[in-house]
Amino acid sequence: MIIILKQNPAPKQLESLKEWIKKMGLDIQVCQGTQSTVLGLIGDTSNVDIDLIGAMEIVESVKRVQEPYKAANRKFHPVDTVVEFGGAKVGGGHFLMIAGPCSVESRPQIMKVAEKVKEAGAKALRGGAFKPRTSPYAFQGMAAEGIELLLEAKKQIGLPIVTEIMDLSQLHLFDKVDVIQVGARNMQNFLMLKELGKIRKPILLKRGFSNTIQEWLMSAEYILSGGNPHVILCERGIRTIETATRNTLDLSAIPVIKECSHLPVIVDPSHATGHAKYVRPMSLAAVAAGADGLMIEVHDNPQAALCDGQQSITPEAFALLAKGVEMIREGMMKEQT
Amino acid sequence: MIIILKQNPAPKQLESLKEWIKKMGLDIQVCQGTQSTVLGLIGDTSNVDIDLIGAMEIVESVKRVQEPYKAANRKFHPVDTVVEFGGAKVGGGHFLMIAGPCSVESRPQIMKVAEKVKEAGAKALRGGAFKPRTSPYAFQGMAAEGIELLLEAKKQIGLPIVTEIMDLSQLHLFDKVDVIQVGARNMQNFLMLKELGKIRKPILLKRGFSNTIQEWLMSAEYILSGGNPHVILCERGIRTIETATRNTLDLSAIPVIKECSHLPVIVDPSHATGHAKYVRPMSLAAVAAGADGLMIEVHDNPQAALCDGQQSITPEAFALLAKGVEMIREGMMKEQT
Amino acid sequence: MIIILKQNPAPKQLESLKEWIKKMGLDIQVCQGTQSTVLGLIGDTSNVDIDLIGAMEIVESVKRVQEPYKAANRKFHPVDTVVEFGGAKVGGGHFLMIAGPCSVESRPQIMKVAEKVKEAGAKALRGGAFKPRTSPYAFQGMAAEGIELLLEAKKQIGLPIVTEIMDLSQLHLFDKVDVIQVGARNMQNFLMLKELGKIRKPILLKRGFSNTIQEWLMSAEYILSGGNPHVILCERGIRTIETATRNTLDLSAIPVIKECSHLPVIVDPSHATGHAKYVRPMSLAAVAAGADGLMIEVHDNPQAALCDGQQSITPEAFALLAKGVEMIREGMMKEQT
Amino acid sequence: MIIILKQNPAPKQLESLKEWIKKMGLDIQVCQGTQSTVLGLIGDTSNVDIDLIGAMEIVESVKRVQEPYKAANRKFHPVDTVVEFGGAKVGGGHFLMIAGPCSVESRPQIMKVAEKVKEAGAKALRGGAFKPRTSPYAFQGMAAEGIELLLEAKKQIGLPIVTEIMDLSQLHLFDKVDVIQVGARNMQNFLMLKELGKIRKPILLKRGFSNTIQEWLMSAEYILSGGNPHVILCERGIRTIETATRNTLDLSAIPVIKECSHLPVIVDPSHATGHAKYVRPMSLAAVAAGADGLMIEVHDNPQAALCDGQQSITPEAFALLAKGVEMIREGMMKEQT
Repeated sequence: MIIILKQNPAPKQLESLKEWIKKMGLDIQVCQGTQSTVLGLIGDTSNVDIDLIGAMEIVESVKRVQEPYKAANRKFHPVDTVVEFGGAKVGGGHFLMIAGPCSVESRPQIMKVAEKVKEAGAKALRGGAFKPRTSPYAFQGMAAEGIELLLEAKKQIGLPIVTEIMDLSQLHLFDKVDVIQVGARNMQNFLMLKELGKIRKPILLKRGFSNTIQEWLMSAEYILSGGNPHVILCERGIRTIETATRNTLDLSAIPVIKECSHLPVIVDPSHATGHAKYVRPMSLAAVAAGADGLMIEVHDNPQAALCDGQQSITPEAFALLAKGVEMIREGMMKEQT
Repeated sequence: MIIILKQNPAPKQLESLKEWIKKMGLDIQVCQGTQSTVLGLIGDTSNVDIDLIGAMEIVESVKRVQEPYKAANRKFHPVDTVVEFGGAKVGGGHFLMIAGPCSVESRPQIMKVAEKVKEAGAKALRGGAFKPRTSPYAFQGMAAEGIELLLEAKKQIGLPIVTEIMDLSQLHLFDKVDVIQVGARNMQNFLMLKELGKIRKPILLKRGFSNTIQEWLMSAEYILSGGNPHVILCERGIRTIETATRNTLDLSAIPVIKECSHLPVIVDPSHATGHAKYVRPMSLAAVAAGADGLMIEVHDNPQAALCDGQQSITPEAFALLAKGVEMIREGMMKEQT
Repeated sequence: MIIILKQNPAPKQLESLKEWIKKMGLDIQVCQGTQSTVLGLIGDTSNVDIDLIGAMEIVESVKRVQEPYKAANRKFHPVDTVVEFGGAKVGGGHFLMIAGPCSVESRPQIMKVAEKVKEAGAKALRGGAFKPRTSPYAFQGMAAEGIELLLEAKKQIGLPIVTEIMDLSQLHLFDKVDVIQVGARNMQNFLMLKELGKIRKPILLKRGFSNTIQEWLMSAEYILSGGNPHVILCERGIRTIETATRNTLDLSAIPVIKECSHLPVIVDPSHATGHAKYVRPMSLAAVAAGADGLMIEVHDNPQAALCDGQQSITPEAFALLAKGVEMIREGMMKEQT
Repeated sequence: MIIILKQNPAPKQLESLKEWIKKMGLDIQVCQGTQSTVLGLIGDTSNVDIDLIGAMEIVESVKRVQEPYKAANRKFHPVDTVVEFGGAKVGGGHFLMIAGPCSVESRPQIMKVAEKVKEAGAKALRGGAFKPRTSPYAFQGMAAEGIELLLEAKKQIGLPIVTEIMDLSQLHLFDKVDVIQVGARNMQNFLMLKELGKIRKPILLKRGFSNTIQEWLMSAEYILSGGNPHVILCERGIRTIETATRNTLDLSAIPVIKECSHLPVIVDPSHATGHAKYVRPMSLAAVAAGADGLMIEVHDNPQAALCDGQQSITPEAFALLAKGVEMIREGMMKEQT
């Protein structure tokens, strides 16, 4: 950490700043420039509160040299994390295809979709029970009943299930769920992240739609530092000035995360683009960028979907997509050998 | 609502779309263009799920003509809402000054700040008991104890209190709190908004840092449509490409909201700018833009604040600011007469 | 085009609006809703000035139903445009690899890089003669001499050249240049676009770093409507809240443009990411998303590059990348058959 | 400037980096941390090319400690710059009101508006001769004839004029123009900025709609370092996720610039908001935030304006606004005494 001091800092305040730093077990090196004085903090600064230092009267600005996350940092954990659940694996070379409807609507619907996506190669079933909707007048999901139907589908079809928690008060309903999804709007619900750090179930952590990669890794850090190492990251687009797609899928996040972190990262092109017609090209692009998996919205009748039908593809389109993904992956393996 | 159809829509699908619309009690007018056919929906469309229509195969796009909110809409409620609590009023010409520390740190701290800001003209005391922090290694607030100290300050100093809820599980702790604040990260926590719609306490709803004004009003709609009419909006900056300030304070939101909605709207320049030195000019600007109030972070010793000291001003600076606000308000009244 | 009127429009003003519309050769259909009246304009509205209508007192808002571009619109030109120059082709299934240094620095440098990238499969050579730099104190390019060196390289190595124009006053220097590049900062330099519409040389039009796809196509429209059909689009990232990469490469723009327009679109991952280490994954992703080509910065000694060395790859890395691209393209062809 | 090295840098490369730094007349101080080594550069680093350093293999990242601008920097020029022209002054306590139509449309129009705005207190007349329009099919301005009409108005009414240059080839037409405006889209047209640095006429430099304050000051630096000290900055909104206003007026930029720079800064609320109805509140807010002036679009018949009528106010509304501005300024002066 680098502290840039204002010109002519009050000697007394400088002394007390130095003492405070040393109390945290850090060493200090002073770089005296012509315009400004810089303090270099030496040691593990991940626990240092950067805001506290920035508030001091003699400080002009503070900059981190090291990343503020440790448990999620590849520097300290060089080996790829592999997350396993219900026979599926993701990360470290294992590619995971998750598919299913935006929301669970009925027993026949979820059974039919589950069967079809399994046939096409999906290794996990997704489906929403609680749906966050911007309008209080729109369909809000089947709630507990939706989770029941997913568990039935799991039993009958044999696919592990991924579904989203909206509030901590629902946690008891997720006992038999394989993977708990934290949605974009909850990425910085720190109380929820802390609780999920206490359990040992895989957590699918979606990126907030206006959060940086570093903030996303800090949210993963909440779960990891609580003791739960099973975190899967999911890129789902960020809000930008472009309006042709619902959000802008940030595929550069894949190689950035591969460099900074050991956690697996998958991509959700359905929510990112908001249009079924863009799901295929963006899925193939995600695979080529090095993603560890995909999460795709599939509905047997997108036009009658109670939620987000515009972005859902049919089981037939999904089967073709799964083949396309295979071809890209084969191409990539060939070029690596 | 306007539905633009693809070229040569299948007649059967068009028929079933029309029937579906009529079932919702709406009339249809068809505009046959040279390139495209447009359906105009006539009647109250606020309950129509725009996504459902957009997913249909024959539909190219759908656009709303009316705003999707009703209870928050000035068209249906032309008179300014005035929210009252503990002797304070905001909206309809009543200006509200809220002040206090970012987080409650100790009994002497909160008592001292409360006394000073009351003296300077504040009509409500703010203070955080639960602090959402991006790093799991930073100070997270005094929790229940913090609320106890705020209630003590309320009793002793005589100012109503405003404090933030982070999760629904904390709701029972807010029984004696005057105003419940919903933070930027919870602006689209729809489950929380629904619960807060069931109580009758004023809710201070902060704008999400990457949410549009329309989304913000839709979140207010959740609370209002649940039956709680006491909503105060609070602008606190949005995330943009600018980095000199923490966020970009969107003061244009004030006249936009005054036009679209009857709800009072106040401004938090402390969180928006992130720097004490910008709090004064942005406060005066907010008043001149027509804000119904301000929420200012005040700390008796900003340099030792456990959270966000960089943006806190001293009680002395606050007293001067309060005077400046008065001068601007007087200037504005003069020019209106 | 859809015009939404305010409640109770003045009958006189409504009449004059209707007459004005009819004078432009358009028909009008009136949809009378309960809350608002909507006018549907029937005919070719691409020449209608939407701002003029929006300014009228009786108008609440105006929305386009058709795209505002015609010459760039796939609806009117369903067949893919193929741009040809110096033996190279791009679009309609032809993939184009452009490579070369950010800026021309010396004869040996440009000759060496040109030779190496040709060997590795590049079909065109890029190199900057004029460099727009944010600081007046940084290297600004070799100017006319840089273009001379590029033309020498063209002659000796046999690759057509692509280089950027910064100002119309330089146009005479581009006589023998094969493709004129319009940089991101000039995407809305409409005077320049108009002039480039008068010549018959291919124009590589980069996307502005904060422009929407529709604005980008409107800029292409300036060139096309001037009579020059040889436009190649180049996605190079947009400015967002993410800072880990210089810009956010918007690969979704590829399928969006493929749908809306017939123009070829290539990708520049070097400028978009700003880091050599992310060039390979983003190049492969661009190919998988359906891009018609790539433009890659290659420098024989990136560490000594006078400009943007951070994002340049070595000729060796480029040769490997070219192979990777081939493998992805083979995979994609296989899955299409 | 702070250079953070990668772990275990090659000693040879480190030596050559150090030598290269010393050759530029800078001293180096080494801070050896546990995780990383940091080099502190001591001396004037404004001419150091940060990209060159960032490209080096042993470098992890580089951060500036000092601002990259000097001539625009308040640290080196503590006294406010006052720009004078045609009897008007701006900066250092002098408030400047500029008003006029978006584009010059005819002699009667510009004469009438000029007369009315002068009466109401404007000290300069604005009017566009060249209009950058996103659509090639929209009105593009009266060009040279427009400038002639502005000069006539100047002579007859007695107001100095401000008008925008679109391309360097037009420079000869601006001989008698008082202030040359550089539009948002040309803020980083570095060739143009360099030429404008060679003349001695005031330049009104608008902020690019997606540029940071630092980039804006770097563009001012181009003009100032060329030898022209007469630069007026103009905030006109940045592109954000909000769509209720055309752009988001960033009023925080006012106090930020007042702190970092000595240059006068004015505000254009007409282009920023895009709606006449928001011009008044945002003008008052700009004044309260400390702006040195305003630039307002005024049209005698906004509904018939050939360009941007939606954002123009009438001469009557302008006269009222000018009074409002006075009241706010009086209020501010009172509270400063």
